[in-house]
Amino acid sequence: MRRDKLHTRQNIVEAAHQLFYRQGYARASVDAIAARAKITKRTLYSHFRSKDDLLAAVLARHSELQMTQIREIDQRMPTKLEAMIDSLFSQMAEWAGKPRYSGSGLTRVVMELADLPGHPARAIARGSKATTENWLAQRLARNAVPEAKKRAREVMLLIEGAAALMLIHGDHTYANAAARAAKRLVDHSN
Amino acid sequence: MRRDKLHTRQNIVEAAHQLFYRQGYARASVDAIAARAKITKRTLYSHFRSKDDLLAAVLARHSELQMTQIREIDQRMPTKLEAMIDSLFSQMAEWAGKPRYSGSGLTRVVMELADLPGHPARAIARGSKATTENWLAQRLARNAVPEAKKRAREVMLLIEGAAALMLIHGDHTYANAAARAAKRLVDHSN
Repeated sequence: MRRDKLHTRQNIVEAAHQLFYRQGYARASVDAIAARAKITKRTLYSHFRSKDDLLAAVLARHSELQMTQIREIDQRMPTKLEAMIDSLFSQMAEWAGKPRYSGSGLTRVVMELADLPGHPARAIARGSKATTENWLAQRLARNAVPEAKKRAREVMLLIEGAAALMLIHGDHTYANAAARAAKRLVDHSN
Repeated sequence: MRRDKLHTRQNIVEAAHQLFYRQGYARASVDAIAARAKITKRTLYSHFRSKDDLLAAVLARHSELQMTQIREIDQRMPTKLEAMIDSLFSQMAEWAGKPRYSGSGLTRVVMELADLPGHPARAIARGSKATTENWLAQRLARNAVPEAKKRAREVMLLIEGAAALMLIHGDHTYANAAARAAKRLVDHSN
């Protein structure tokens, strides 16, 4: 792919990513995406066959960014178990405190496409959530938590629940409640 | 309101409820709702000023139905704490096993309207989730669980997390994991 063509493509993906995250998939129109990327609709369609194709590219990018973010979190994260969990959920609370917080983009897209289990976006979301759960399991195992996979799944439930309830109530203290619960669940001293 | 007029109104709300639940708010068109209710779009707009108004009526109905459901669950529910939690999450798993399972309709609408915190639908969803959390707190308090409000919030996080992850992965065993975690969290013997 020529460099300027690649640049235009990245530009479209970036514009679509912002609009999909803000307005959801259905309400973000191709016209608005093209306008935001400062290109014509014709150019947009020369890069992507359909809005569905564009969504798949956006989600691939989104989950790539999320993996980078997880690696960064992983590096900065304290090694002690309690501090690790506090750090994870306080980062979630901080994120939820931002003006445009809209919960997990991947979960939102799955909910929006709930009637389309075969949509390519669904597979990307599923894969990304599984990667996060596996990462948690490894982290817990490294801290000698017994049955780390089971515990990781429970922490994952708390993460998803907190992301949703912080959005519903506009109250980021749900992350504190989730952190407290997660610490009790992974505590193997009792 | 005349009886046939009331009947038509209920009919529209019912049709919109089904389509919104299946396709989400943005993708369910007013045309499709009118067709499903077997009326003209003109008649629909004589009952509801806008699609937003119709959504508010649907959610009011949805949360009314949900309250009835909670009362029914409450009556059928075992009195012992462990059995109560098992019953709650096994009903969720059963629900998630149905072909058209799409997660919590209220959570989905909040995620779809994430950029519109002032939308009337958001207030209805918030109120309904708060009612469920309060009901859980009462139930736990009746079972002598200390700090019942805090524990209810944690169980609520697990419920929301399970509803989302069962949809994302198409795997209803997330409800079992949530039940196990909830039982450990409310267990006051240790």
